[in-house]
Amino acid sequence: MNVTIRGRPEPCRTVTFDVRTNSVQLIEQRLLPHEFKIVGARNFRETARAIADMVVRGAGAIGATAAYGLAQGALAFRGADLTKFSAHMAAVFQKLAAARPTAVDPVNAMQGVRREMARGGTVAEQQLLALAAAEEFANEDVRHCAEIGGHGAGLIRDGMNILTHCNAGWLAFVDIGTATAPLYAAQGQGKRFHVFCDETRPRSQGATLTAWELAQQKIPHHIIADNAAGHLMQRGEIDLVIVGSDRVLGRTGEVANKIGTYTKAVLAARHKIPFYVAIPLSTIDWNLKCGFDIPIEERHGHEVLGAWGILAKPKSEIRKSKTHRRAYIRVANPGSPARNPGFDVTPAGLIAGIITPAGIFKPRALWHRRHELGYIR
Amino acid sequence: MNVTIRGRPEPCRTVTFDVRTNSVQLIEQRLLPHEFKIVGARNFRETARAIADMVVRGAGAIGATAAYGLAQGALAFRGADLTKFSAHMAAVFQKLAAARPTAVDPVNAMQGVRREMARGGTVAEQQLLALAAAEEFANEDVRHCAEIGGHGAGLIRDGMNILTHCNAGWLAFVDIGTATAPLYAAQGQGKRFHVFCDETRPRSQGATLTAWELAQQKIPHHIIADNAAGHLMQRGEIDLVIVGSDRVLGRTGEVANKIGTYTKAVLAARHKIPFYVAIPLSTIDWNLKCGFDIPIEERHGHEVLGAWGILAKPKSEIRKSKTHRRAYIRVANPGSPARNPGFDVTPAGLIAGIITPAGIFKPRALWHRRHELGYIR
Repeated sequence: MNVTIRGRPEPCRTVTFDVRTNSVQLIEQRLLPHEFKIVGARNFRETARAIADMVVRGAGAIGATAAYGLAQGALAFRGADLTKFSAHMAAVFQKLAAARPTAVDPVNAMQGVRREMARGGTVAEQQLLALAAAEEFANEDVRHCAEIGGHGAGLIRDGMNILTHCNAGWLAFVDIGTATAPLYAAQGQGKRFHVFCDETRPRSQGATLTAWELAQQKIPHHIIADNAAGHLMQRGEIDLVIVGSDRVLGRTGEVANKIGTYTKAVLAARHKIPFYVAIPLSTIDWNLKCGFDIPIEERHGHEVLGAWGILAKPKSEIRKSKTHRRAYIRVANPGSPARNPGFDVTPAGLIAGIITPAGIFKPRALWHRRHELGYIR
Repeated sequence: MNVTIRGRPEPCRTVTFDVRTNSVQLIEQRLLPHEFKIVGARNFRETARAIADMVVRGAGAIGATAAYGLAQGALAFRGADLTKFSAHMAAVFQKLAAARPTAVDPVNAMQGVRREMARGGTVAEQQLLALAAAEEFANEDVRHCAEIGGHGAGLIRDGMNILTHCNAGWLAFVDIGTATAPLYAAQGQGKRFHVFCDETRPRSQGATLTAWELAQQKIPHHIIADNAAGHLMQRGEIDLVIVGSDRVLGRTGEVANKIGTYTKAVLAARHKIPFYVAIPLSTIDWNLKCGFDIPIEERHGHEVLGAWGILAKPKSEIRKSKTHRRAYIRVANPGSPARNPGFDVTPAGLIAGIITPAGIFKPRALWHRRHELGYIR
């Protein structure tokens, strides 16, 4: 998507690979929305650290970063000894897999690269195959998001107000994103609409990342407190909800996503506002039989008890500048503890449809149509 | 209620009057929860400024502050000339009424004091009547809150998890509060229960004021992001919801309260969790015929775009100290605008009952029983 740099929109991907310097190029997401910077990870160890330290986050983006990291590790190998190369690659794989141990995307992506590499007979062949496979992984991620956009754009009509929660945008993928894909596609078709970004406490990804993305793309939007969506729905100010997901159960159509998603789905159902979930097929979990079995990560309370941002005067206009001082403030009563579940589970009955690269499906139809959707026993 | 000062719980009211120094004593609420301090307003102008600057906030608390401010103005008058005294009192009244022009409580409270004063024949008599009437107003506020607690405590059973939103606690009244009154009364009866405080973005009154109150009173509690209540209800972790209100429509039973209240009521209804609203009778609006006619204040966007607190390290334990630096941080994307409705309206159908000093009423029964509830044509 575009990023406005020195007043000009420039096309940009979240993750790219620079063959010349053998480096993985990443948007430094921890600085957003207050500063835009691309950083280069110059070897696979730096790439692993970028994943671990959340320079890059989001399922598709960390998958592509790990795939590129594996290719980067392969290309750094000097020599032609296949046995030594294999041992080296095992170490690279381990290092990258250990960067975010609970995430499945990096491992899945690297396994795909490794399968391609196995077709090569020499170290040099395998190095080139690794690079090609990583590039293909990234391109396929973009293609899938574009397909989601193509299907989802049909839901958007001129004049609509669309609510989204958290960030399932292009920053979480290689490009385009999932929940944002229908927005970008509809914009490309010349449709005019307006987006409400839920702040998405406690980590505020809606107010920071999604709002930043929409601002770059010049899509009209307002940030709202998570508390305000119900009121706006009641007053007829929201026509459609689109969110992403961390895991969709193929057997039941239940959707795990950022905490607060379930609340928006309950509100949307009450107001008969269609609620859609946009995902790549890799997000479907064909094994779990019940949403209550999805482990809900309980995160550290300091996220709820405070907030991150830049020091500012409340009513002043904020301009981007490197002189801004980033800070954490404690908001809550000192000594009061917090509960901080990171995700929640939305039942199928509240969801109008799951937008995938293969089309839009009723959540309970996923299992029935599993063979079109990449189900593997 | 109690405030722990130097390790010892000490009884305290939000608003008191010191006859010796003719000053209104107020908890400086803008420093909470990070610092506890009582400030004295030494004349009626300072009292008006304390109301205007939100040193004191909350319907009952600003009503009592204005009543005391009027008495304070009366007591400061030197001389026995009734005509001059009347002119002086008119000026005092105007000054205090203008401090928070949209609030009805200060004006209502001062009119009550003025009616009592009219019974006196001399300046000295009127001065004493003013003081007595202001004291009576404050005591009546406390009595009403205690009655709310008495009725509401019956809803609380041992082992319950109770959700509350925003702050309708003793800091918003002279003492005890409304939504918190059943909690304090149940605690007094030896019941054991646990409270979830909604953070209540954008101004975070739940995380700051309510959590502070509960901590002072040693009631077990956790702060949660507003996004988390739905998930906790789904998992069976919330048994009862009690909130306050800024305005209850006597004709329809609709409840206006802090933004996000409606969302919690919708979630509670879905999970068949009883949702109660605790109010003094002065909160009932007998005139308005429709909740959609309640004006919803659209507040400044900087509340949504950032947060107030003290600079801290995220995972460090925070101790109370005067050295803490208070700060505002901008969280959201620079340049993205916000919508910030301050209140929402919950329909009667989502409300199990209205807890008042006169008992607990079904919201749609208020009109039918208006004559017991102080309805004035």
